[in-house]
Amino acid sequence: MNEKMLKEYARLIVEVGINVQKGQRLVVNCPVDCAEFGRMLTTAAYDAGARDVIVNWRDDYVNREHWLKADDDVFDTVNPWDVQKSLALAKEGAGHISIAASNPENLRGVDPDRLRRFDVAVGRDMKESSRLMMANYCPWCVVSIPILSWAKKVFPDLSDEAAMDRLWQEIFSAVRITEDGDAVEAWREHCNNLETRSAKLNEYRFKTLRYTNSLGTDLTVGMPEEHVWMAGGDTSRAGIKFVANMPTEEIFSAPKKDEVNGVLYASKPLNLRGNIVDGIRLTFEKGRIVDIHADQGEDILRAAIETDEGSHYLGEIALVPYDSPISNSGVLFFNTLFDENASCHFAFGEAYPSCVKGGDDLPMEELLKRGINADSSQHVDFMVGTADLSIIGTTEDGREIPVFVDGNFVI
Amino acid sequence: MNEKMLKEYARLIVEVGINVQKGQRLVVNCPVDCAEFGRMLTTAAYDAGARDVIVNWRDDYVNREHWLKADDDVFDTVNPWDVQKSLALAKEGAGHISIAASNPENLRGVDPDRLRRFDVAVGRDMKESSRLMMANYCPWCVVSIPILSWAKKVFPDLSDEAAMDRLWQEIFSAVRITEDGDAVEAWREHCNNLETRSAKLNEYRFKTLRYTNSLGTDLTVGMPEEHVWMAGGDTSRAGIKFVANMPTEEIFSAPKKDEVNGVLYASKPLNLRGNIVDGIRLTFEKGRIVDIHADQGEDILRAAIETDEGSHYLGEIALVPYDSPISNSGVLFFNTLFDENASCHFAFGEAYPSCVKGGDDLPMEELLKRGINADSSQHVDFMVGTADLSIIGTTEDGREIPVFVDGNFVI
Repeated sequence: MNEKMLKEYARLIVEVGINVQKGQRLVVNCPVDCAEFGRMLTTAAYDAGARDVIVNWRDDYVNREHWLKADDDVFDTVNPWDVQKSLALAKEGAGHISIAASNPENLRGVDPDRLRRFDVAVGRDMKESSRLMMANYCPWCVVSIPILSWAKKVFPDLSDEAAMDRLWQEIFSAVRITEDGDAVEAWREHCNNLETRSAKLNEYRFKTLRYTNSLGTDLTVGMPEEHVWMAGGDTSRAGIKFVANMPTEEIFSAPKKDEVNGVLYASKPLNLRGNIVDGIRLTFEKGRIVDIHADQGEDILRAAIETDEGSHYLGEIALVPYDSPISNSGVLFFNTLFDENASCHFAFGEAYPSCVKGGDDLPMEELLKRGINADSSQHVDFMVGTADLSIIGTTEDGREIPVFVDGNFVI
Repeated sequence: MNEKMLKEYARLIVEVGINVQKGQRLVVNCPVDCAEFGRMLTTAAYDAGARDVIVNWRDDYVNREHWLKADDDVFDTVNPWDVQKSLALAKEGAGHISIAASNPENLRGVDPDRLRRFDVAVGRDMKESSRLMMANYCPWCVVSIPILSWAKKVFPDLSDEAAMDRLWQEIFSAVRITEDGDAVEAWREHCNNLETRSAKLNEYRFKTLRYTNSLGTDLTVGMPEEHVWMAGGDTSRAGIKFVANMPTEEIFSAPKKDEVNGVLYASKPLNLRGNIVDGIRLTFEKGRIVDIHADQGEDILRAAIETDEGSHYLGEIALVPYDSPISNSGVLFFNTLFDENASCHFAFGEAYPSCVKGGDDLPMEELLKRGINADSSQHVDFMVGTADLSIIGTTEDGREIPVFVDGNFVI
């Protein structure tokens, strides 16, 4: 790839995504296949004044061998040094960059119970650090670059090289990197636009949102009284602005935990725990998922939803127009970072505290009182947007406001 | 490279080097540039029954950036999770494979004081795990595979590809991997030969060994009463045989800490802390290094020797014939694993407890009473063998026995 654009991308991630501060430690979660880009991020971070850069390398092949062949009881525990590391780095407010790049089916054939048990262990042992991350104690940013196994899944008909090139193009387009443009400036403008729209949504104080489309979705989602629609960036506890996802096209909030009712169909396949789950249909009663169906990968989906009590409830509601840049590319990425930013989506599992007023400062018990799903080790986004999606909001005083018509914003 | 030979090498390391046991955890320290081989080791380990494989990836580029650009006080501490991890894994007896493959001059230009201070921190915080490793609580094995920066340093006149190929050939030859041979069987025989010779040396009960050669070396090395010459393999505390270095050609023991006197010239450049140190001359009085000289990299050498009090003393004495396989290749590897197995060598810093009778079971204080250098965070091998090296042993009853004449064993 064009080295100049790569370096611009690394700078964008470090300076806008994490907004690294002088003297701040940075963690980079990076596949070994992305070593060249991991090195660029490292240099960009030091150049921006990082105190130190810790790269957590990982590898699809080694991971797959682990999940398939390690002793069975390994999946019931988290290594204590991994717990200590993630907690210490979250507490000190280190920036966390994660490069989301994997074979979408890397864990195909792995016993779903192993996946479930390890998630339970992570939920138990990593609760404190995970909660700090969710409450923005530390800036974090998820980005992607191509690796071959992923590129070939997205573009199976292209040669290896062409598939990699094409995926790079799609990623650069989604994150606003151009040959001659100023990506930092482009992001500033983009985030402002998202914030303007989320401010408008916040004015409505919706009590419920009703989703319907021709897939069969008919879902009514209650909203907490003090809900906040967020978009375009977050602020860490130390007051540092950061952008948690690049790309980001969503405006998101948290539903009221026990006021979700109806049937919800996913509109795209979901890359979940190294597997593809497709044809998802979930039925909700008083917020709880009471029926789980998937045409493909149902056991994987079921194991994820059944990880803990909180993972049976929604924790995020997010709006993305059908007519938006990533959606218009027509590419199915099999990577949630991209697919969720091409489509309205929900997540089951824990809500972001910032989705209720002052939530980042509230303990779990208070967040639960505010009505959001504040106690789960899971947070799994899945896509529900379609070209004919209708969303009608009802305000506290009973007015019905069309929010989405034919898949797009109308407010 | 020939895939069959690579797999045989991986199997050799796992089954003979570490001799991995069913249900035992394995740690693999692996450069990201060696990912393919790291994957092969992972599979070989699981196939041999490993409980789990933890790969600690590292990268020369990221390391160099860290050493050059991180905040200065970073080098005074070790991250507590790294301490916990290495201690827990040593205590449980996990096998530790390290792939020694780096640019020999990767840290050229780094402030030697940073290197020294971090070694002091490691010595302080990693003392317990380091001691467990030295005393063979867990099987460990150091091996190498080529990376480009290293291959080009060894064969600067060859093309990238030819340099990599040539280094592979040299490594395979040194570790007895052939197209059709049985490397496991070849190693069994090789280790037996080394053990036979070390048994012979043990019978002499040398009181001193006097080294002289035309470089100017004239050094008398006292030996502890209960010294043991070791070779060809070790036994872990759990009773598992393992081979700590592949290749290994040495017969080694520990000198008496305070009975080393004279002048010692190194015969090869030394790759030390990412730098090349050459033209080393050390002067000893009552065991202590009292004068340090190097034509190149003296500051790096001085920083290493001055890490702690114990690093001013020798901790290992090792015999390798000038006429031996790696030496006869005529290749200067700039990698201690190979260069030390082509040459008689010493190490300054901590001795292996097993070099005195029953030493693996003795606490540090007892080892010091036995006369060996048992308290240092350092263990740095350096090469002293030449074609004209003479070593004359003196037994307890005053007999003078030629051990080496013209660089080779004569007993």
